[in-house]
Amino acid sequence: MAFHYPNGQSFPLKKSAQQTLKKETTFANRGMHFEEAINQSNEYYLTHDKAVVHKKPTPLQIVKVDYPKRSAAVVKEAYFRQPSTTDYNGVYHGYHLDFEAKETKNKTSFPLKNFHQHQITHMQKCVNQQAICFVLLWFSSLNRCFFLSAEKLIDYWNEQENSRKSIPLSVIENEAIEIVPQIAPRIPYLIAVEKYLEKRSQTNV
Amino acid sequence: MAFHYPNGQSFPLKKSAQQTLKKETTFANRGMHFEEAINQSNEYYLTHDKAVVHKKPTPLQIVKVDYPKRSAAVVKEAYFRQPSTTDYNGVYHGYHLDFEAKETKNKTSFPLKNFHQHQITHMQKCVNQQAICFVLLWFSSLNRCFFLSAEKLIDYWNEQENSRKSIPLSVIENEAIEIVPQIAPRIPYLIAVEKYLEKRSQTNV
Repeated sequence: MAFHYPNGQSFPLKKSAQQTLKKETTFANRGMHFEEAINQSNEYYLTHDKAVVHKKPTPLQIVKVDYPKRSAAVVKEAYFRQPSTTDYNGVYHGYHLDFEAKETKNKTSFPLKNFHQHQITHMQKCVNQQAICFVLLWFSSLNRCFFLSAEKLIDYWNEQENSRKSIPLSVIENEAIEIVPQIAPRIPYLIAVEKYLEKRSQTNV
Repeated sequence: MAFHYPNGQSFPLKKSAQQTLKKETTFANRGMHFEEAINQSNEYYLTHDKAVVHKKPTPLQIVKVDYPKRSAAVVKEAYFRQPSTTDYNGVYHGYHLDFEAKETKNKTSFPLKNFHQHQITHMQKCVNQQAICFVLLWFSSLNRCFFLSAEKLIDYWNEQENSRKSIPLSVIENEAIEIVPQIAPRIPYLIAVEKYLEKRSQTNV
């Protein structure tokens, strides 16, 4: 996109490609914004007709809305509500996907305090309805990403209820599927979904 | 719930059961709040382990948040955003459900102005990913509810692009699956989903 000045010269706007490049360079050093990377991956999958996955909006209790003349309605008072589901869901090849994305700066384990009972309850209900349900775990200090199935997370959650409150990286390396970040999609989680489906079909046979 | 006064007497708060009762009695006369009926049906299906379906929160662009001492964060400025999906989705028996609920006071046709291009586009993408995608149409003046598959809605939408902008009730009676409202769940849409699946499997054979 460019603005054209009267002298015929164009004034290029900051290109989104440049912005993306800038983001990529800071990504390795300062830890990427994991949620943003997931959202961009969803966008990629959507535009390439691979899957339809969206992040759910933050639930708000709206109390007061102003309707000013000649401009858009403005919410003037609202409160955050506890979400009753995970953040992401959608459809891939007939499968219902339902997942949560979490990150930690820890290097040796993933703290379970990142999860809440209502999310675990929701994931159990989804698993019962045969959804593909999982969490994407991001170790920002290690630049490593894992797909951990809800079944395994829930097992661990129930075992750990009253003891150690984190999953050691060694357990995750064994039980989860590692996802290697790419340029596009940045977090190619559908590869992990396919591996999970393959494994599940073998186990069921 | 009750407040206790110093004299030991309790002051009962208005019971939600009474509120529900009041709503039920007005339902037949003044037309029910369709969205509320769907939400209650989702709640019923969730608690009875039949399906996990939730309404998506309204998407808001949050601009300003206050964090007062000793009380909850308050959103002080936010704007409504265009949703990029339908209102409802979830999982039933391994199937991904994705739908929109709309009502009209009309008696002879359903106006297509109730739908937006972005919703149609989203539904087409879901259909391509083999989702069970549909709209629930409520004729409030007739007390009649229909399940219309996204495939048929999209066909009609494309045909009608530049002509008559509504679907006649007679067409809906032929092409859609009628849902008879009940006590619980109030809108038993999973019955229609089952009929749709049965029909679809016969067509595919």
